[in-house]
Amino acid sequence: MNNIPLKYPFNQFAYGADYNPEQWPEEVWLEDVKLMREAGVNAVSLAIFSWAKLEPRPGEYDFGWLDRIMDLLHTNGVSVLLATATASPPPWFAKLHPESLPVSETGVRMEIGSRQHYSPSSLAYKQAAASLAGKLAERYAKHPAVIMWHINNEYACHIRASYDEESATAFRVWLQRRYGSLEKLNDTWGTAFWSQQYADWEEIQPPRQAPTYPNPCQCLDFKRFNSDALLELCRAEIDAVKKHNPALPVTTNFMGISAPGLDQFAWARNLDVTSWDSYPDPAKDEVAYNASSHDLTRSTGGGKPFILLEQVTSQVNWRNVNMLKQPGVMRTYSWQAVARGADAVMAFQWRASRAGAEKFHGALVPHVGTADSRVWREVCDLGRELRACHEITGSRIVARVGMMFDWSNWWAVELPSKPREISHTTIVTQYHEALFDNNIPVDFVPMEGDLLRYQVLVLPLTYMLSETTAKNIKQFVANGGTLIVTWFSGIVDECDRIWLGGYPALLREVLGIRVEEWQPLPEGVHNEIKFIADGKTSICDFWSEAVDAEGAEVKAVFTKDFFAGRPALTCNRYGKGRAWYLATRLPGEVNRELFGMICREAGVQPLLEAPKGVEVSLRERDSSRYLFIINHTDANHEISLGGHHGADLLDGQQMVAGTVNLKPYDVKVLKLAV
Amino acid sequence: MNNIPLKYPFNQFAYGADYNPEQWPEEVWLEDVKLMREAGVNAVSLAIFSWAKLEPRPGEYDFGWLDRIMDLLHTNGVSVLLATATASPPPWFAKLHPESLPVSETGVRMEIGSRQHYSPSSLAYKQAAASLAGKLAERYAKHPAVIMWHINNEYACHIRASYDEESATAFRVWLQRRYGSLEKLNDTWGTAFWSQQYADWEEIQPPRQAPTYPNPCQCLDFKRFNSDALLELCRAEIDAVKKHNPALPVTTNFMGISAPGLDQFAWARNLDVTSWDSYPDPAKDEVAYNASSHDLTRSTGGGKPFILLEQVTSQVNWRNVNMLKQPGVMRTYSWQAVARGADAVMAFQWRASRAGAEKFHGALVPHVGTADSRVWREVCDLGRELRACHEITGSRIVARVGMMFDWSNWWAVELPSKPREISHTTIVTQYHEALFDNNIPVDFVPMEGDLLRYQVLVLPLTYMLSETTAKNIKQFVANGGTLIVTWFSGIVDECDRIWLGGYPALLREVLGIRVEEWQPLPEGVHNEIKFIADGKTSICDFWSEAVDAEGAEVKAVFTKDFFAGRPALTCNRYGKGRAWYLATRLPGEVNRELFGMICREAGVQPLLEAPKGVEVSLRERDSSRYLFIINHTDANHEISLGGHHGADLLDGQQMVAGTVNLKPYDVKVLKLAV
Amino acid sequence: MNNIPLKYPFNQFAYGADYNPEQWPEEVWLEDVKLMREAGVNAVSLAIFSWAKLEPRPGEYDFGWLDRIMDLLHTNGVSVLLATATASPPPWFAKLHPESLPVSETGVRMEIGSRQHYSPSSLAYKQAAASLAGKLAERYAKHPAVIMWHINNEYACHIRASYDEESATAFRVWLQRRYGSLEKLNDTWGTAFWSQQYADWEEIQPPRQAPTYPNPCQCLDFKRFNSDALLELCRAEIDAVKKHNPALPVTTNFMGISAPGLDQFAWARNLDVTSWDSYPDPAKDEVAYNASSHDLTRSTGGGKPFILLEQVTSQVNWRNVNMLKQPGVMRTYSWQAVARGADAVMAFQWRASRAGAEKFHGALVPHVGTADSRVWREVCDLGRELRACHEITGSRIVARVGMMFDWSNWWAVELPSKPREISHTTIVTQYHEALFDNNIPVDFVPMEGDLLRYQVLVLPLTYMLSETTAKNIKQFVANGGTLIVTWFSGIVDECDRIWLGGYPALLREVLGIRVEEWQPLPEGVHNEIKFIADGKTSICDFWSEAVDAEGAEVKAVFTKDFFAGRPALTCNRYGKGRAWYLATRLPGEVNRELFGMICREAGVQPLLEAPKGVEVSLRERDSSRYLFIINHTDANHEISLGGHHGADLLDGQQMVAGTVNLKPYDVKVLKLAV
Repeated sequence: MNNIPLKYPFNQFAYGADYNPEQWPEEVWLEDVKLMREAGVNAVSLAIFSWAKLEPRPGEYDFGWLDRIMDLLHTNGVSVLLATATASPPPWFAKLHPESLPVSETGVRMEIGSRQHYSPSSLAYKQAAASLAGKLAERYAKHPAVIMWHINNEYACHIRASYDEESATAFRVWLQRRYGSLEKLNDTWGTAFWSQQYADWEEIQPPRQAPTYPNPCQCLDFKRFNSDALLELCRAEIDAVKKHNPALPVTTNFMGISAPGLDQFAWARNLDVTSWDSYPDPAKDEVAYNASSHDLTRSTGGGKPFILLEQVTSQVNWRNVNMLKQPGVMRTYSWQAVARGADAVMAFQWRASRAGAEKFHGALVPHVGTADSRVWREVCDLGRELRACHEITGSRIVARVGMMFDWSNWWAVELPSKPREISHTTIVTQYHEALFDNNIPVDFVPMEGDLLRYQVLVLPLTYMLSETTAKNIKQFVANGGTLIVTWFSGIVDECDRIWLGGYPALLREVLGIRVEEWQPLPEGVHNEIKFIADGKTSICDFWSEAVDAEGAEVKAVFTKDFFAGRPALTCNRYGKGRAWYLATRLPGEVNRELFGMICREAGVQPLLEAPKGVEVSLRERDSSRYLFIINHTDANHEISLGGHHGADLLDGQQMVAGTVNLKPYDVKVLKLAV
Repeated sequence: MNNIPLKYPFNQFAYGADYNPEQWPEEVWLEDVKLMREAGVNAVSLAIFSWAKLEPRPGEYDFGWLDRIMDLLHTNGVSVLLATATASPPPWFAKLHPESLPVSETGVRMEIGSRQHYSPSSLAYKQAAASLAGKLAERYAKHPAVIMWHINNEYACHIRASYDEESATAFRVWLQRRYGSLEKLNDTWGTAFWSQQYADWEEIQPPRQAPTYPNPCQCLDFKRFNSDALLELCRAEIDAVKKHNPALPVTTNFMGISAPGLDQFAWARNLDVTSWDSYPDPAKDEVAYNASSHDLTRSTGGGKPFILLEQVTSQVNWRNVNMLKQPGVMRTYSWQAVARGADAVMAFQWRASRAGAEKFHGALVPHVGTADSRVWREVCDLGRELRACHEITGSRIVARVGMMFDWSNWWAVELPSKPREISHTTIVTQYHEALFDNNIPVDFVPMEGDLLRYQVLVLPLTYMLSETTAKNIKQFVANGGTLIVTWFSGIVDECDRIWLGGYPALLREVLGIRVEEWQPLPEGVHNEIKFIADGKTSICDFWSEAVDAEGAEVKAVFTKDFFAGRPALTCNRYGKGRAWYLATRLPGEVNRELFGMICREAGVQPLLEAPKGVEVSLRERDSSRYLFIINHTDANHEISLGGHHGADLLDGQQMVAGTVNLKPYDVKVLKLAV
Repeated sequence: MNNIPLKYPFNQFAYGADYNPEQWPEEVWLEDVKLMREAGVNAVSLAIFSWAKLEPRPGEYDFGWLDRIMDLLHTNGVSVLLATATASPPPWFAKLHPESLPVSETGVRMEIGSRQHYSPSSLAYKQAAASLAGKLAERYAKHPAVIMWHINNEYACHIRASYDEESATAFRVWLQRRYGSLEKLNDTWGTAFWSQQYADWEEIQPPRQAPTYPNPCQCLDFKRFNSDALLELCRAEIDAVKKHNPALPVTTNFMGISAPGLDQFAWARNLDVTSWDSYPDPAKDEVAYNASSHDLTRSTGGGKPFILLEQVTSQVNWRNVNMLKQPGVMRTYSWQAVARGADAVMAFQWRASRAGAEKFHGALVPHVGTADSRVWREVCDLGRELRACHEITGSRIVARVGMMFDWSNWWAVELPSKPREISHTTIVTQYHEALFDNNIPVDFVPMEGDLLRYQVLVLPLTYMLSETTAKNIKQFVANGGTLIVTWFSGIVDECDRIWLGGYPALLREVLGIRVEEWQPLPEGVHNEIKFIADGKTSICDFWSEAVDAEGAEVKAVFTKDFFAGRPALTCNRYGKGRAWYLATRLPGEVNRELFGMICREAGVQPLLEAPKGVEVSLRERDSSRYLFIINHTDANHEISLGGHHGADLLDGQQMVAGTVNLKPYDVKVLKLAV
């Protein structure tokens, strides 16, 4: 976004939490900073929900309390990621600007009383938020405690769109910019279907509740528009703060790989550092799933170290049943973040609230206090460990495998009226998991990304594919790359219009196949595939296809349904490379073997051989290489280092070679010998 | 409706699809007609969603493209079922008449962007639709390609009612016509309950969202009113087109036996031909279920040949998971339609769309194209087969069994606040299936229908029964007919008021029983019945009753609950006939045996003996008799012709006798020797 | 509420039903009173839904019909609980005052056509209802048939809150009264969280639909406010009727222990007699569950005899599947009410309706009539039995066990954003059942109740606890009482703010424990506890805790999860008493044993030893003692009288000693010998 050289924020791990001192009397602040020092906390996110405190009445500001806490933190060696305090407008704002409240698809105007109650297209909100951000920047942009701006908070967490009149107007302006003419819009949206041709821009509406399926491209564009409208809000705040200190970096916290609201690749181009809030469910095995969000956040940031901006020490409050992280699991998840590229380990929040909607959200300082508290012990232990590893900051992940990820594709694939309902996140993370389980590093790559840095490129469920991207992909394979494309890919253009003449039209040549028909499979219905090479079989489910090989080598065939005997897995030589096509969904274990095999054939090796549940990652900077081995299971494991040896940073730099023994929930951080 | 003699439209099977040329450049049209000839397509439904194309701005018409395609079709021997193009008003219409948009029970005004966004009571819509229909008729009513009007499309598919103010006003007018006085309305609706007496017509509202159960008769009348309001829309269009050529027949496509919106018997009196859209779910066995809609559509049309106006070649797009029709199944379902009385086999749609909400709906010309396409091969094969059978058109089904079917009964039985929740369609089609599985032809009969043409009359779940109908039924039995009445029948009058003094009050005498109490059974709870004759038992579920025989012979008794030993199945002699009562729901196989037995006793024989999944039907005209045998299973079957022999029309008129061998999904059409 | 001495209404059991003569022609009335005499019916609730009949137009009254039926009832010895007729305003009222219609959380204004369509804060409704009540009182307050006022009907059954503007204004007034200053409100609500500080009273809104979790204390106060607003409506009616005859007692029918709308303890202080409507589901075993509502209604009434104001003879109409009460079960449930303190056994309704939303609700006179009717036979039998027991009226239950019950706690515990979702009623009734199954009488006790009359006090799921209540509880134990506290108790103050420093803060000392963390358990996940004394184990589920004993004796420990070995059940000596803490949910049978053991240790013995399903209760007055033994099962049971003997009131006062034999669904009422 800008070319101003930024001082890299982290020469040591940032460790800390959201800090909401406004919820506590000032005498508690003194205890807070004392405890922060005890725990090794060196950074806090401040003032995220302080608007009402900072501007209690329109234009009436109170910065005194913030001055005091900033100084106190600074004095105690705690850096500040200063929020713009705009995440939740005060009650007076909604009273002054009722039109700023978001409106649902069915016309319900959301009320104040929770948070994020603003329409993405509210001009009043944009002006007020930018104004407050500017006021804060004017006062604090050069405060010595501040190391970064925390813009707003979790954009689109609750409100991803508003269907009010102001939004309708803004949508029309956005469409006019995108399409130039109504003819172009009518053609692109396919309004010839169901008599939807627009004769005037003013006729166009947001896709409000309608009698049945709305126009898909209208829906898709409305999602694009809202991501853009929110980005305009964000940019207005960024501009306001950068004005006062262009060198101070900015971030805003994304919500990971299951957050559909924002096109994070587009957003990240406007940020100096990317960050996200990580909340795996302790009631489920979400280790790989959580890793995929780390990889995504690192990838949107262009591979730079990112910030784990929120996690929880113990348990959250917003699921139906909120189980505890087992002892040691806050640690393994914290190290997972670092292992996958984070230079900061932050949590929500510092001190558990006494009141409000999140008082049952875990914190570094729990309700029970710090004396004789399991949570507090783990907090202090983690602080010590991070301090022992500060040299790792700034190092990076090097991935030879790229996986395409695109929000427009996501939005389009989940619109209704498809061969079957599909959860994009579920499917994509299953293919990520196939690589994760092999301990093969992977980047997510946007559609327009640079493919040539990768040896293997995976297109999971890439339903939407532009001509440009298809061309780049073919070039990638022609140049020697290995491509893996899964089922229901290459179906539509970037406007959700079918590529006719046999799926996946633009990729038929590179894949050497034609998909004639899809057979979606309901829950509980399976097909089966048989591998040609060894005759082994595997069940498959969710989706299957009638495929013809047109030059590709058939690696496996379906054994059931009317297309039994026709290809389920193919591999085509194209130029110097190879292109694989997988026409169904396989079980995780089979995916793991298949993706591991293809990567090895393409010259990409796992970092280490390790059983499922033991995560291995590597960060590098110049000649320094840091190997992370994390046991996410409650069993003991002995892992061969595969010839590596190095200093165990969490154990006094003791040298380790041969194998390492991992206790349940154990973590090893080895600085490898050169 | 009218006494003008209509030229019967079909002297050969109509075969084709909805055709939406406005979605394609004109160069594609030439390929279209070429392919139509290749496939034997001889009819298309045209202009269903063309309003915006025909009238791009209010009062500004463009018929040029339609002229061109009509002529092109005519030149190529393709007839046209010309739509009135009113199914989806253009965006400008909603902008001009926002009050025409339908409003939900909770006050949500539906937006444009899908289709069918008009209130059934919108005067503006009625005038605009009739006007457009008139314009089309003025221009095309005598075009040589046109063989029928396709009025609007799938009325009430999405919008069955609107709760806006204009609808409220129209509802009041309808009520004034129905009841004459408020006293009558108050009495009929039972407003003495819950203090609901109306003192002024203006107080009456549609049954909008209320604190709890609304007045049942108010709800029932609102359903009746909406069916009537929609019929007024339809009649306005019919009047507009008939004005220009009274001899051109009209149809509108119904949605089959699971469509509650329209009283199809009342509607059909306004149509020249009935038609419906058939979409059985390939993921389920819906062979019998689909047959029941054919029987219903034929019955609403008074037994005349009807039109299968839509089906899909492969898979639809609107279920959560849309499986493919297996190879051969489009053929079996097409022949099922013909076997049960259709003279036309049409589909949605001709060419699969590139864009819009239904681009994943299968078509005759799929995305993959026609070369090397399973779907296209089947399309062409079916065209050839139909051509070999044109002589069948005009022949009819003769059924000796009638089954009562009434929309008011349906609406009433599904209103809340009943002994248990009941799905009318589920129950009624189970009893239809009992006859279907016996290959016994059955008509559906309206309440006021002529009963004397049947030997057996079934009243399935006939909760609502008027005095007149009860009298006719008694007469039917007295004259020698066999009556079968199921549980929860004869409970209320046509205003949903209980017939007091022991259920089923008006039928007690003819059935020779009294029902004292109902015991509804939750899912998973069963009772059991024991047949007196042979001591065999069967489980039963869903519903049971405490019954007293008052003259009837007890054929089976319950074995559980406090009424164990009391009747579950009875038969009463009344006049020259017999009246059966079944007080619970039996498994399908037991139903099949029971209904088969009763029919045989009544002198109604199955057409042929055949296993479940093999459908047999017979069409007759003068001395010609056509026997259809359709194997809906993936197994081989050998079927005895039971003494019949005849020419196999699908196999070069080869003579067949004795038995026929059916391959999986095989079809035989035999012209029986006299 | 008032100090005017009331004549105790019941010197014999009231037996009867809601009576709605306005639904029937007057000739039916004569049959009604004849049948009432036949059945022994001596009381009816009259005119509950008669507003529209009494005031057909604004200010236009018609009392003639009511005069006639009142006189007819009186002549026939039937007393009247006269309703104020305000439960359902007539259609004209909503037309005149559309703002009186309630509005949902999402802004949907409820329509007329069902019942209870008024906002709790509607001033127009309050005035109109009080005015009608006054008119009725003016005319009938001294009518000889009237024995009680039945105020309105089932307040909050459907509408527990309205979110309209008038309600918002009233809510602000209520808040100003409660908090005095905005500073106090902001502090109490914790508005520092999420930037919710209010700068002006006018900014405050009801907790309408918001982007995410609303402020918990705002929600809690809105529930309190609505209970109070409804109580103001009720009091306006009470004041209106008392004005004309202060000695005539008033009741309004509550809805039992699963009705969250009204703070019944606060309400009952305004009533002379408490009453409730009992509808156990025959498809489930709800014997204990139903008993808990009897105990609650008796307890809110301060232990005085209460009224079973509604039940059903056979089956209701408002569940999805409405099974019948088995023969004999209306009797067992009726005697359960009496056994637990009722002096009246009333039903909804006298004669089953012909029309309207409840025509399928059972009645004393069913649709089938009275001749040869199982239901009518049972109605008459019950009438005879009650007549044989009139001397019981006025006697009372003496309970030595109290169970805390508080609506604010209920509301708070079910607000979202908790460690897990919890159904207050489900949990609390499970602990009531543990006592019920032991045949140990139990009262429910409000937070501010007198504890010293009990030997055992149970705090089930008492999440919310004020300092005052905590102090009283400690005093209770110090004085020798036995306390049982369950998991997730003592967490917040009366404003839903955490008591910091280790749960359950205010009870840590008396319990001798600290709860460090909660581990909520999803459905299907279990932990296990092991009793120290005998090494027996039991599974446990739903919730578990990491507990430290701080002086308490550990009685059982968890065996799984990271806190295995730490306490699950503790007992602490405190002063002269003992305090038990249970940190998880146990199976019913284990609860039964545990609570029985603790009660016995505390000197509280079961009335009799009896198997599950056989209920035992005792009523006393002066030296008379009445023992009830009710077999709720379909099995025979022999029960030892444990040394008691007495006269069997249902069997001609025959003397019974030693053991009694109970047939299925049998009832014994013994007048014990002194």
